[in-house]
Amino acid sequence: MNVRDALFEKLESKESDMVKHRRYLHQHPELSFEEEHTAQYIKDFYKGKDVTVTQPVAESNAVIVEIKGGKSGKTIGLRADFDALPINEEADVPFKSLNEGVMHACGHDAHTAYLLGLADALIDIKDQLAGNIKIIHQHAEEMPPGGAKQIVESGALSDIDEIYGIHVAPIVGPEVIAYNKGNAFSGSSTFTLTIKGLGGHAASPHKTRDALVAGTNFVNTLQTIVSRRIDPLEMGVITVGAFDAPGGSNVIQDTVTIKGTARYLNNDLEQFMYDEIEKVAKSVAVGFDITYDLDYQFGYPVLYNHPEQTQNVADVLSTSTGDYFEHLVEIPPVTGSEDFAYYLKEIPGTFYIVGCKPEEVEEPYMNHHPKFEVNEDALLVAAKLLGEIALNGLAARE
Amino acid sequence: MNVRDALFEKLESKESDMVKHRRYLHQHPELSFEEEHTAQYIKDFYKGKDVTVTQPVAESNAVIVEIKGGKSGKTIGLRADFDALPINEEADVPFKSLNEGVMHACGHDAHTAYLLGLADALIDIKDQLAGNIKIIHQHAEEMPPGGAKQIVESGALSDIDEIYGIHVAPIVGPEVIAYNKGNAFSGSSTFTLTIKGLGGHAASPHKTRDALVAGTNFVNTLQTIVSRRIDPLEMGVITVGAFDAPGGSNVIQDTVTIKGTARYLNNDLEQFMYDEIEKVAKSVAVGFDITYDLDYQFGYPVLYNHPEQTQNVADVLSTSTGDYFEHLVEIPPVTGSEDFAYYLKEIPGTFYIVGCKPEEVEEPYMNHHPKFEVNEDALLVAAKLLGEIALNGLAARE
Amino acid sequence: MNVRDALFEKLESKESDMVKHRRYLHQHPELSFEEEHTAQYIKDFYKGKDVTVTQPVAESNAVIVEIKGGKSGKTIGLRADFDALPINEEADVPFKSLNEGVMHACGHDAHTAYLLGLADALIDIKDQLAGNIKIIHQHAEEMPPGGAKQIVESGALSDIDEIYGIHVAPIVGPEVIAYNKGNAFSGSSTFTLTIKGLGGHAASPHKTRDALVAGTNFVNTLQTIVSRRIDPLEMGVITVGAFDAPGGSNVIQDTVTIKGTARYLNNDLEQFMYDEIEKVAKSVAVGFDITYDLDYQFGYPVLYNHPEQTQNVADVLSTSTGDYFEHLVEIPPVTGSEDFAYYLKEIPGTFYIVGCKPEEVEEPYMNHHPKFEVNEDALLVAAKLLGEIALNGLAARE
Amino acid sequence: MNVRDALFEKLESKESDMVKHRRYLHQHPELSFEEEHTAQYIKDFYKGKDVTVTQPVAESNAVIVEIKGGKSGKTIGLRADFDALPINEEADVPFKSLNEGVMHACGHDAHTAYLLGLADALIDIKDQLAGNIKIIHQHAEEMPPGGAKQIVESGALSDIDEIYGIHVAPIVGPEVIAYNKGNAFSGSSTFTLTIKGLGGHAASPHKTRDALVAGTNFVNTLQTIVSRRIDPLEMGVITVGAFDAPGGSNVIQDTVTIKGTARYLNNDLEQFMYDEIEKVAKSVAVGFDITYDLDYQFGYPVLYNHPEQTQNVADVLSTSTGDYFEHLVEIPPVTGSEDFAYYLKEIPGTFYIVGCKPEEVEEPYMNHHPKFEVNEDALLVAAKLLGEIALNGLAARE
Repeated sequence: MNVRDALFEKLESKESDMVKHRRYLHQHPELSFEEEHTAQYIKDFYKGKDVTVTQPVAESNAVIVEIKGGKSGKTIGLRADFDALPINEEADVPFKSLNEGVMHACGHDAHTAYLLGLADALIDIKDQLAGNIKIIHQHAEEMPPGGAKQIVESGALSDIDEIYGIHVAPIVGPEVIAYNKGNAFSGSSTFTLTIKGLGGHAASPHKTRDALVAGTNFVNTLQTIVSRRIDPLEMGVITVGAFDAPGGSNVIQDTVTIKGTARYLNNDLEQFMYDEIEKVAKSVAVGFDITYDLDYQFGYPVLYNHPEQTQNVADVLSTSTGDYFEHLVEIPPVTGSEDFAYYLKEIPGTFYIVGCKPEEVEEPYMNHHPKFEVNEDALLVAAKLLGEIALNGLAARE
Repeated sequence: MNVRDALFEKLESKESDMVKHRRYLHQHPELSFEEEHTAQYIKDFYKGKDVTVTQPVAESNAVIVEIKGGKSGKTIGLRADFDALPINEEADVPFKSLNEGVMHACGHDAHTAYLLGLADALIDIKDQLAGNIKIIHQHAEEMPPGGAKQIVESGALSDIDEIYGIHVAPIVGPEVIAYNKGNAFSGSSTFTLTIKGLGGHAASPHKTRDALVAGTNFVNTLQTIVSRRIDPLEMGVITVGAFDAPGGSNVIQDTVTIKGTARYLNNDLEQFMYDEIEKVAKSVAVGFDITYDLDYQFGYPVLYNHPEQTQNVADVLSTSTGDYFEHLVEIPPVTGSEDFAYYLKEIPGTFYIVGCKPEEVEEPYMNHHPKFEVNEDALLVAAKLLGEIALNGLAARE
Repeated sequence: MNVRDALFEKLESKESDMVKHRRYLHQHPELSFEEEHTAQYIKDFYKGKDVTVTQPVAESNAVIVEIKGGKSGKTIGLRADFDALPINEEADVPFKSLNEGVMHACGHDAHTAYLLGLADALIDIKDQLAGNIKIIHQHAEEMPPGGAKQIVESGALSDIDEIYGIHVAPIVGPEVIAYNKGNAFSGSSTFTLTIKGLGGHAASPHKTRDALVAGTNFVNTLQTIVSRRIDPLEMGVITVGAFDAPGGSNVIQDTVTIKGTARYLNNDLEQFMYDEIEKVAKSVAVGFDITYDLDYQFGYPVLYNHPEQTQNVADVLSTSTGDYFEHLVEIPPVTGSEDFAYYLKEIPGTFYIVGCKPEEVEEPYMNHHPKFEVNEDALLVAAKLLGEIALNGLAARE
Repeated sequence: MNVRDALFEKLESKESDMVKHRRYLHQHPELSFEEEHTAQYIKDFYKGKDVTVTQPVAESNAVIVEIKGGKSGKTIGLRADFDALPINEEADVPFKSLNEGVMHACGHDAHTAYLLGLADALIDIKDQLAGNIKIIHQHAEEMPPGGAKQIVESGALSDIDEIYGIHVAPIVGPEVIAYNKGNAFSGSSTFTLTIKGLGGHAASPHKTRDALVAGTNFVNTLQTIVSRRIDPLEMGVITVGAFDAPGGSNVIQDTVTIKGTARYLNNDLEQFMYDEIEKVAKSVAVGFDITYDLDYQFGYPVLYNHPEQTQNVADVLSTSTGDYFEHLVEIPPVTGSEDFAYYLKEIPGTFYIVGCKPEEVEEPYMNHHPKFEVNEDALLVAAKLLGEIALNGLAARE
């Protein structure tokens, strides 16, 4: 029996374990950077197994598990994130969140569950492996600066040759695996602009410096960054999500606060959009005689799927189509962000998507919705997919 | 002794009463339309006096007191308002408000106090009067639609020939009386515009109809009403006081709420500014594919000081200059609003201003400020001023 | 016979001369600063008369004529302007302009004609005058910096005690004389803003710096100067008259040119509006990464009619009402500009308006229209009015 | 010798002919829809050859040449355009344009020249061809609605199975061939918006309806179409190229004219952008009380390179790399437009790019520049490329 068959047999036998893990984690979600209990659950799982478990980031919950293969070879990283969101679950499931106001609404419970199953199976067959596997249980994906950056900076991945991960998405069912090459998930930045004018009586605008009108002018001029300054062939969005200037009708306010985000699929735009937004803020200061404070945070960078690794995986998967999944599709870039991008800035690899739409649902609730649900068939699909990728990564270097 | 001298002697003897009234009222302020206790205090004051006390507006607190003169003649109305504001007093006075969150921060306590004193004196000398005086203790000046409109509509003033009133203002001290002819206090309207778009994810603006950007466009286009559509020789202001769209940076909102006010010194602009503001709202609906709800309230109309009565009073006062006050000044129109405007739409008359700046204060706190204070010398000045006006009004018709 | 009667008798006898002058000048209009022939006509008129004729402004056409009275007294200045406009006459009159493209479309021909008649009559009776008259035939009123400023700066008027002038206006007929006190004609400035960006292909805006969009942003932000920064009780207008950016639909332009004007009735706004317009231009430069050139010209200042002189004239005229005119009306400020303002910055005086609407015309063509016409009855009215003012000015100081 | 070798040998022998054609055409450029002389030159070329020459579009200059192969098979279309531009040539070449103000500044002379050479060679070997070739000499590519649409509508291509063409571009030299799959050249529309307000005096904006400020508002709101309404992953540009409102600073104008273009790489956006631009125009009409006329012209649609044919050609070319050219590169979509798009809406095929940068030039002048030049080595490369494509197209169907 070849290694792939051996691994798949193991995985099939562990499917119910994966479901059990997933449901347990779903019931016990924890917010980003506060995942102590989850990390302990993971460490307990590996207790007594022939692996090296480390926690490379001080005062954080990341858990890294090294599985040494029987033969020498490359080292392949597999990552799943495990933090949850500040959302109050509304899904009607028997294993509903027990933590009021916290929910695994993005599927990280499924990610961690399949990876525990996959790690277990890989440990079982590790003598047959020509190289090593590093299992990366990552904390804090949902909250920039995010856990991935910390793990990369810890140096714990310096010996990894390639890295892979997936995200579940309910757009399609588990019979579909999706990928894209190159810039695949958008980079994002967020900003808060505070405009300080001088308030006063509504009937005497000339004695004030009207922060509110300066603010609406800012928002309007902001539109020209996307419409005139970014290459039309590039994806670029600037959204103002909040214009916070409550008050009465008769008072001109001192201060207004504007919050927004910039998205892009080309990392060059990260700095460029900041520069242009700052320029527009400055122009409003000059034109309206106000002062401002621009708090601008670069978020996750653009996630770049390395073309060679992405194509390698696609080639491998094309031979598995019809086996444990039905369709392999190439999709356009995704406007969401993922801190897996930090790994791919340093290490070749790729990030795939596995469908998780529940059966017989027409319009599924999307990630981050209080009623989000995962089709648990996706667990085995993800485990086989990443297992196959790992084996292929090692084999390719034998 | 002529009537004026008799009246002034009485008023001087009642000055401490006026101060006592004012301090009592200051300690017991009541919000507009809720002035039960104040109305009772006023009614108690007139108990046993030879006057007719009525409350012409059902379920409101207005108190009208008719003083019949010894001889027949015209009827002169004198008005003072008595409601307070939802402000927490911060002034350091021994007679500080006892009603948490309510304060006589606009001087209506002083208005009512001097008018009680003046009514008392007029009652004392009423046999000498050639005509009648109607004392109008008005409720709810601070809250449109206001008490004045209700009193006018009650018909209680249908027999009045002229009407007069004053407002205290701390810009100058009680040695100064100020007036202006024609359009003197601005009219005002207020509006709340609710823009309803379709919210969504910050990275997918094309799946939304962005209410926030529609809103900032509304505010910017709104500027052209004042800058291009109103006669430059007319006073016109449109202020947006609130742009209420709080939220996070990553979500496009469904709805934003914008509040504002329009001010004008020509009643023709009341309807015109509404029409134009509605036009701009409609244009944003067309251009941004959103719907809107415009809640537009006409507030107090422009206060029109009848030129003849204003000049008459100025002529009378010019002979009193140097007596109980020092300066009589003609001033430009005031951008604030006053529901005395409703009386002057029906009845000839004028509305004066009496300085009330505390002594030895350089930069006094203005009306509506939590630290607003009244120089109580203004009480006697106001009483004499209105007394003189009343006598003159009656005399002129003998 | 008193002096006034003597003067009026003379003026009546010279009415046909005035008409003759007016028609001659109308046929021979000359542009501002080029009025050689007109000046010569004026000088020829005074030849042989007992007056002192000077041309105080080097290389210009101003003519000043001093008439010494028989008795000593004050010196009164009377001014009429004599330049024409670059307009091609379309009025159907027998004395139509003979100078193609030049027309007396503002009535300066009438001004000069009545003043020649009045000067002639004053010379006839000069022995009876208690003081002196300076007749100021002014060049270049239509083109800033204007002739008035040059004449003032020449020092030729340093001995004048009061100065008076009029303008004809066809809003009403010659039976109406109009005036206003204080700030009466608006000040004006003009500007040309050149925005320099970087042009390019319509499909590649990101390789350009779009001057046109920067320009439309400038115009929109400009609206906030009038709407938010000027006291609502002050008159202020900023009009953009030209946005000069012709071209094809497929090319982004390097440069756009914007022209406009600012108007105000308070001289403090002259500098203020410049500062604010410059501020908005600068803000656009900062926000759109363009450069600009702002050519800003202060035009004529606000014309201030000195209240005392204006009232004096009104008092005098009130006794003449029903004599040579029917109505004396006080009017609101005029939004047009007049360089008579320069005289009134230095010398007490006032500037009146005389109706010149042709008889039996419902909707007359206004000043500066190619079909503008003058009711010549206005000549005698103007002559009498200014004659009466002059006599009164002298008499008042005897 | 196989067919390809035979064809290439012929083409090499005809290279100097192609250069001669190109230079002749360059010297005799003709504007779109006026190419009589050029069409005659082409028809003369085919005179006496064993082909069918037709002119399928009435009153136009299109020339279609059918070459019947020795064996039956499919029909392949090859197209070159032959119109020139209204540009005055500034290139320093011995065969400079003899038609003042008209220039082959887009390389259509080169297109026609290589296709004449290729047609000649194909005629020579036609007995060896398994199918037919239709040579399409197209008129009027530069001026919408363009010649391609007319030819398609004539039905002359109804028997064609596949169609191919190229454009020369001086970004690279003739050693490079470039292609892209799917939406490859942008669609474009153009518009002229005339805004009609009511003009008047600069100082009285309230008596006007200011078309200019309405126009700048239109341009500013227009930015939100690209910034908020189009999928950020889609290419979309709206450029305003002209804002035509010349005038003086003191006059508010009646009318302003705005010209612009919309570009897109998804044909769904053609109608969408029109709808949105109309919506913004309508909103300005509502908001500013003006009327408008929007003349909107759909231009060439998005050029869609059929993936199968594009890949087929790429596969064929990959075996020729290093032979008559050095590099085959996949490039991003082009923001320019091409009426070849009309053929590809009906017929499978693809449109390639051949480098034509002159040797030893660092910064070549681009298409449409008065100094644009073509490296004539590109003629043979283009002929071989299209020849190879044609043979492959026929062979594939044998």
